[in-house]
Amino acid sequence: MEEPGFTPRTDLAIEVGAILEREEKEVEDELDGVDLHIEPHENYKKTHIEIFSAAGEKIMSKPMGHYITIESEYLKENNPEIHKEIIEEVADCLRGLLPTHSGILKVLIIGLGNRQATPDTLGPYVCDKVLVTRHLAEFVPEAIDDSVCHLSSLAPGVMGLTGIETSEIVKGVCEHIHPDCIIAIDALGARSATRINSTIQISNTGISPGAGIGNKRKKLDINTMGCPVIAIGVPTVVDAATLINDTMDTLIESMLAESTNAEFYSMLRDLGDQEKYSLIREVITPTIGNLFVTPKDMDEVIMYLGNIIANAINIAVHPGITIDDVNKYRY
Amino acid sequence: MEEPGFTPRTDLAIEVGAILEREEKEVEDELDGVDLHIEPHENYKKTHIEIFSAAGEKIMSKPMGHYITIESEYLKENNPEIHKEIIEEVADCLRGLLPTHSGILKVLIIGLGNRQATPDTLGPYVCDKVLVTRHLAEFVPEAIDDSVCHLSSLAPGVMGLTGIETSEIVKGVCEHIHPDCIIAIDALGARSATRINSTIQISNTGISPGAGIGNKRKKLDINTMGCPVIAIGVPTVVDAATLINDTMDTLIESMLAESTNAEFYSMLRDLGDQEKYSLIREVITPTIGNLFVTPKDMDEVIMYLGNIIANAINIAVHPGITIDDVNKYRY
Amino acid sequence: MEEPGFTPRTDLAIEVGAILEREEKEVEDELDGVDLHIEPHENYKKTHIEIFSAAGEKIMSKPMGHYITIESEYLKENNPEIHKEIIEEVADCLRGLLPTHSGILKVLIIGLGNRQATPDTLGPYVCDKVLVTRHLAEFVPEAIDDSVCHLSSLAPGVMGLTGIETSEIVKGVCEHIHPDCIIAIDALGARSATRINSTIQISNTGISPGAGIGNKRKKLDINTMGCPVIAIGVPTVVDAATLINDTMDTLIESMLAESTNAEFYSMLRDLGDQEKYSLIREVITPTIGNLFVTPKDMDEVIMYLGNIIANAINIAVHPGITIDDVNKYRY
Amino acid sequence: MEEPGFTPRTDLAIEVGAILEREEKEVEDELDGVDLHIEPHENYKKTHIEIFSAAGEKIMSKPMGHYITIESEYLKENNPEIHKEIIEEVADCLRGLLPTHSGILKVLIIGLGNRQATPDTLGPYVCDKVLVTRHLAEFVPEAIDDSVCHLSSLAPGVMGLTGIETSEIVKGVCEHIHPDCIIAIDALGARSATRINSTIQISNTGISPGAGIGNKRKKLDINTMGCPVIAIGVPTVVDAATLINDTMDTLIESMLAESTNAEFYSMLRDLGDQEKYSLIREVITPTIGNLFVTPKDMDEVIMYLGNIIANAINIAVHPGITIDDVNKYRY
Repeated sequence: MEEPGFTPRTDLAIEVGAILEREEKEVEDELDGVDLHIEPHENYKKTHIEIFSAAGEKIMSKPMGHYITIESEYLKENNPEIHKEIIEEVADCLRGLLPTHSGILKVLIIGLGNRQATPDTLGPYVCDKVLVTRHLAEFVPEAIDDSVCHLSSLAPGVMGLTGIETSEIVKGVCEHIHPDCIIAIDALGARSATRINSTIQISNTGISPGAGIGNKRKKLDINTMGCPVIAIGVPTVVDAATLINDTMDTLIESMLAESTNAEFYSMLRDLGDQEKYSLIREVITPTIGNLFVTPKDMDEVIMYLGNIIANAINIAVHPGITIDDVNKYRY
Repeated sequence: MEEPGFTPRTDLAIEVGAILEREEKEVEDELDGVDLHIEPHENYKKTHIEIFSAAGEKIMSKPMGHYITIESEYLKENNPEIHKEIIEEVADCLRGLLPTHSGILKVLIIGLGNRQATPDTLGPYVCDKVLVTRHLAEFVPEAIDDSVCHLSSLAPGVMGLTGIETSEIVKGVCEHIHPDCIIAIDALGARSATRINSTIQISNTGISPGAGIGNKRKKLDINTMGCPVIAIGVPTVVDAATLINDTMDTLIESMLAESTNAEFYSMLRDLGDQEKYSLIREVITPTIGNLFVTPKDMDEVIMYLGNIIANAINIAVHPGITIDDVNKYRY
Repeated sequence: MEEPGFTPRTDLAIEVGAILEREEKEVEDELDGVDLHIEPHENYKKTHIEIFSAAGEKIMSKPMGHYITIESEYLKENNPEIHKEIIEEVADCLRGLLPTHSGILKVLIIGLGNRQATPDTLGPYVCDKVLVTRHLAEFVPEAIDDSVCHLSSLAPGVMGLTGIETSEIVKGVCEHIHPDCIIAIDALGARSATRINSTIQISNTGISPGAGIGNKRKKLDINTMGCPVIAIGVPTVVDAATLINDTMDTLIESMLAESTNAEFYSMLRDLGDQEKYSLIREVITPTIGNLFVTPKDMDEVIMYLGNIIANAINIAVHPGITIDDVNKYRY
Repeated sequence: MEEPGFTPRTDLAIEVGAILEREEKEVEDELDGVDLHIEPHENYKKTHIEIFSAAGEKIMSKPMGHYITIESEYLKENNPEIHKEIIEEVADCLRGLLPTHSGILKVLIIGLGNRQATPDTLGPYVCDKVLVTRHLAEFVPEAIDDSVCHLSSLAPGVMGLTGIETSEIVKGVCEHIHPDCIIAIDALGARSATRINSTIQISNTGISPGAGIGNKRKKLDINTMGCPVIAIGVPTVVDAATLINDTMDTLIESMLAESTNAEFYSMLRDLGDQEKYSLIREVITPTIGNLFVTPKDMDEVIMYLGNIIANAINIAVHPGITIDDVNKYRY
């Protein structure tokens, strides 16, 4: 699980300052090196951001590539009909990012995160739900046909429990099984509490698993792994300091709207973002540096999200599995 | 799990305004109808509050009776030595509150809370760890002797999942098995984040399980159950709004200390506590009304707390089990 | 979980000697006081046994009432289509056994068994999956309408862990919430390994939860509970001694078929069933008296069975929930 | 989990025919190329078998090396005192097999088996309980000192769920982190039901994780992994066919002891072991080929075994952790 710090950097491309500003100010002018395409649907919103030049990388603080976001409040609800719709959309997005390949695709699913902390179980949950076939292809080839690709799946655990960088484990496995493509699933830290459990981001630029100690995160991407890495992420927590910071901002703004107190207002304004965040951390660290904020029904929502993502993967990578098979993989 | 609202009311007697003020202001004068006895130990602090008159009930907004609190940061750590010390202290407190009885005591352990939400599993966890003997006494009396009392144990679940008020379930069972005493264990909501997982409160005035819907909580106490109800509670969460409120207070205070801005300061002061809390809830409700704040290592700490409480119960109620047997009940 | 002994008695009406013989010998003559109706379907077999007189009770060693069995190998497989079919059939059977009632039905679901032993988790699993509404009816009546009945649900645990007879807990709760009907779900011990996970029995004559110690089982039925008790049971284990006994029988028979050794054959025949079973228990008790036999994929199959039963209950008791809602309750 | 077939081959060296015969017949003569040393203790029995020549390898059907077995019925009981004794013994055995090394040892713990099947969770359970330090050494070297070695830990899952041979995963990780030694823990299939949960085998000749499909098991040993592989195994299941076979043998023998029926007796004798086992499998396969036999209290005993093994590892590999710290690692 990514632990968010208060920086312009965010795991979600749609939360990057430049994108947020455009939306807020309803600016219509193009961003240099960035293509932005928003598709409203009845039950969800799809945003496709493509960063296609060095200028775009700089503006977005993210590497070139595709970042597709599906936003829907229905992700949090037990709504099989709309989930089916979203599964098809996510599968379509995945198909567009998979490497083109003449033969049978070899895909490795990596479920990042810690099985023992509810909001961090998304990755391992998806690992358990995808249709694993690689061993059949190897040991009982007569049992399978062209309707399935060669899928393998691994939940490598987190460094705090294994003592090993996740990238070392995945790299080691890749060197033995040579996948054409990795799909890595992780729970993310959101910048804004409103996005918790209501956003799925799919990108083709890799992912940095939460490193915990020292923040030395080794990224999983085409350079480190030797094959394309598609990342699927869902924000499931915000850290307590971020939440407090944002709520205070809203609150102070609303209180000051009615105040004529220019001096204090400007003092607060002068207090830069980073400074204010540091102050908050300082105040809360002794007691709650270790706290996180998560919904009460997280265990239930993980099942919805996990089944949506696992099904979308099954449909996208296995040629013979269709949306009609979707209920088979919901248990 | 109790859900805290922002009111002077708190589940912990040591967080009641009158007590906090005394501590803050180092006031030494007596509270009317309230005895307060603080015992500092090397590794923990014990506070014994006795409310003994109607005046005391009014000041404390709590019924007459004993409220004993053990506070220790070591509760959160894997420290078997100090835990053993605390087990003995909690067992002593329990013994002092158990009904005196000439024969073999019949005790019913009630583990309140939801097995599926990590910070709410304390009660059910303790249920699983106490040494249950009642069925042996009934069906194979030759298998046991006077070294054990008649202990039974039930985790009734939460109303949101059973559809039944917890008090109805417990009352129904009591009418059939007629215990001399109930010991009910629950996770509480703390008023202050600093108390999370570092405080155990033992009282003999009953407990109101979190009612969830409608806040119609039916209390478990001697009046409703027909036998004394000892409550053991540990705060394991704070709600997000309370945390934000407290952090803001600290923060604004520290910012204003350096400000000469009297007007804004007084505006904030004039904003009463309840008003400010309502404002915060208003700001955050749409997005995070459903959020709670809990430590990242909650699953681990539940094991420490649960084993301490279960062992203290085993030692306090079973005449033949001593502190030396404590490791037997740690798995 | 019922622990099977080797006696003519079995929890499944279709395993009663009189019924088995008819099937084996293809006898067509009627059983006195017993109606037997077999309905073959493409994907399952339905057997409806009604015991309607004292004579029938004697032949069947079971109380008067209805015993409906659904048998299907598909219960063990991930087959949502056929499961849907079986859900409808089980719901139909349940509807036929529910008390007729002019107003809104009050139903209490009792999930018997131990949450911590995989093959015994069926009852608690179903408890978690039914749509609980009773608390809404009581506390937020405006939130629900006539499309749902008043459903509550309790997993009382097993006597070995609670120290309390299950019937005492359920009886106590009934006296407070006064249901019109109880539906109790339990894992059963099968007489034959072939029936494991492939049989659902629905009856309206109550159920005896596994008592463990002393075999003093207090039955849940209309006499003890004061309202009709519908039981839904699935055999999930056989005990090791029963399995060995049956396999030996088959084996010896097949070996002796080729033997001319009349003497030994008659010796084995003369060894009565009970004697032989005792001998087996004697041989194995020191080492494996404590063993049970269960399928390797039990954890997966419990999900199939649990979802089928929970959905059938939801459809049967809630007037406004139909087979089309079935996927909502599969998570 | 190893799935046992009925062959002279067994995972436990003490179950090899040549060793069993010696014990049964109380033969005292030496086995060629095999050293056998039995040490009875009050609370356990230690057997040290060393195979030191090609002749010994042939007799034992096992590679040269050390096979140490600790047998104790107390392994199944909640007995912290005796467990402490056994922890020290297992730690001693491990120390004797660890590579000698001048600097700080790098050890990789591999927990084989499936987290979702109770009797197969021993390996992953141990992984969760050992004190992992490698990441601290790498990222916060100042936080640790010479009292700990560099320990990492991985539960790679089973091929049926990952689609990847376990040996490929472990080999890949080894090539990145270069341990001096692997310690692999696995649940084994016992040949005899009496050994379930009462035997720990420690060997330095590697281990073959249960391969499931096709029985193509790739061994983890010094040749495949490039470093010594110490294996710790505990039998937690027997397969149903083996159990039936053994019980029948005992039973028929006891029945025939009283018979004068020489003909049938000789017929059974003539039926060779392999033939009889095949016959049993044939009889039971349609129904119970998929069954296994395991104790009812397996979930509890896994905790005892797992804590014993994890503690023994902690003491053996970390220079500064002693038997007195053992309770720290029991949660």
